[in-house]
Amino acid sequence: MDDKSFFEMGKQVLEAQSFSQLIGAKLQKFEPGEVVLEIPIKDNLLQQHKFVHGGVVSYVADNALTFVGGSVLGPEVLTSEYKINYVRPAISEKLVARASVLYFGKRQAVCRCDVFAQGSDGEEKMCATSQGTIMVVTSQ
Amino acid sequence: MDDKSFFEMGKQVLEAQSFSQLIGAKLQKFEPGEVVLEIPIKDNLLQQHKFVHGGVVSYVADNALTFVGGSVLGPEVLTSEYKINYVRPAISEKLVARASVLYFGKRQAVCRCDVFAQGSDGEEKMCATSQGTIMVVTSQ
Amino acid sequence: MDDKSFFEMGKQVLEAQSFSQLIGAKLQKFEPGEVVLEIPIKDNLLQQHKFVHGGVVSYVADNALTFVGGSVLGPEVLTSEYKINYVRPAISEKLVARASVLYFGKRQAVCRCDVFAQGSDGEEKMCATSQGTIMVVTSQ
Amino acid sequence: MDDKSFFEMGKQVLEAQSFSQLIGAKLQKFEPGEVVLEIPIKDNLLQQHKFVHGGVVSYVADNALTFVGGSVLGPEVLTSEYKINYVRPAISEKLVARASVLYFGKRQAVCRCDVFAQGSDGEEKMCATSQGTIMVVTSQ
Repeated sequence: MDDKSFFEMGKQVLEAQSFSQLIGAKLQKFEPGEVVLEIPIKDNLLQQHKFVHGGVVSYVADNALTFVGGSVLGPEVLTSEYKINYVRPAISEKLVARASVLYFGKRQAVCRCDVFAQGSDGEEKMCATSQGTIMVVTSQ
Repeated sequence: MDDKSFFEMGKQVLEAQSFSQLIGAKLQKFEPGEVVLEIPIKDNLLQQHKFVHGGVVSYVADNALTFVGGSVLGPEVLTSEYKINYVRPAISEKLVARASVLYFGKRQAVCRCDVFAQGSDGEEKMCATSQGTIMVVTSQ
Repeated sequence: MDDKSFFEMGKQVLEAQSFSQLIGAKLQKFEPGEVVLEIPIKDNLLQQHKFVHGGVVSYVADNALTFVGGSVLGPEVLTSEYKINYVRPAISEKLVARASVLYFGKRQAVCRCDVFAQGSDGEEKMCATSQGTIMVVTSQ
Repeated sequence: MDDKSFFEMGKQVLEAQSFSQLIGAKLQKFEPGEVVLEIPIKDNLLQQHKFVHGGVVSYVADNALTFVGGSVLGPEVLTSEYKINYVRPAISEKLVARASVLYFGKRQAVCRCDVFAQGSDGEEKMCATSQGTIMVVTSQ
């Protein structure tokens, strides 16, 4: 599969996730071992202090982890587990999640994803970092 | 503060989170050290296989952890970090997150939250379990 | 296998771990889904402030998680990942790790382990809590 | 403080940890934001399959995280929490833990540590990756 078809396949999966459509997530990069997901920030993604809700940050980390795992394991994968540290409140125009693969075998991948708040000047500040396990879906 | 005022305070915080309104989360219990959050499942919370999207499960775990931490530390708190293990796909009418406090001091609480998929018969199956740290917001 | 043989099998695995012998870990309970490991505290398990070293607390949590996973999955297992929150410094005569299984399938189990510091009066205080995934060892 | 005094300070803390002496950990690098800890593998650090025991891998990740947090926050710190993914069994002559700081404020740092198994030819294979929070010890 060429790069463009690979990227289109990733886009189709994201578009088939109605929750990702509700959030407004966009796939910016989908290559074997590397994924970038973005979320333009709208009012309905905030919490009571007008920061981006932690659940949105978690969503994008989790989903970028699943996608990057799937980029090396194939499309039938799910996040088995992950942990996230929030390091700064996300106040920005856009969230950018950059995920990569640390290790993978046949059945699972250990992946990392950093989430950045990107301002209107394009400057990025890390707001969360996460690490998790992506598994191939089996009959278990 | 009596129990009812305490619960009302929790409800107001949840209602002030526009993302929680978008998801449709409802506070069922808010007592010192114990919180129950529920989400009726709608189509826009699903992923490509028609399961509840992991991001929704994460959101409810994360938010229940924050609320239960806040129930003992006061309202000015945030989730510092958490980890979640997904154990079963969530296919159900309702998600129910039950959170409790394992330990708390002046500045932080270590909390746990199990998330259950509740069917129309009221039966619950655990679909995720999480553990995290809630901190009082300071000037740091 | 009867209860006694099951327990003896667990003890043999622990005794075959030279690191567990170095630490001085003892198996107190080994039943399907429930494990208790204990460590009498000696000077060589401490850190610079004379608390039990975090590495000892981690070891006992990790090992109790592996054992409890193995109690339902069979002996050929390993810890795939875990997270631990330290909640109190461990100053005590004995560490007691109590582990249980939250969910298991054919290939993996999600388990929890709380670690307590037990004083000479038998009173226990939680010093750490952990959660992790135990997997059956495969050719991957 | 010059680089050498800084390194010596780190070495003294490690030498004051009797458990680190029992394990045989050596500080190879201790600079603000970057730490390398090594453990020569001896028989008493193994488990029943003659791999390095997970508890040793955890210990070195945890301790490297604490040291790297302390390198930017000051010496009075402890690991608040961390998570670790084991990715390969450690069969080697030496474990090498490389830790760095992702974010730090006045009271806490979020740090990462990868653990490698180093063979006699100097080649390194990642065997675990971890992420955690280091906190300044306070009266809480």
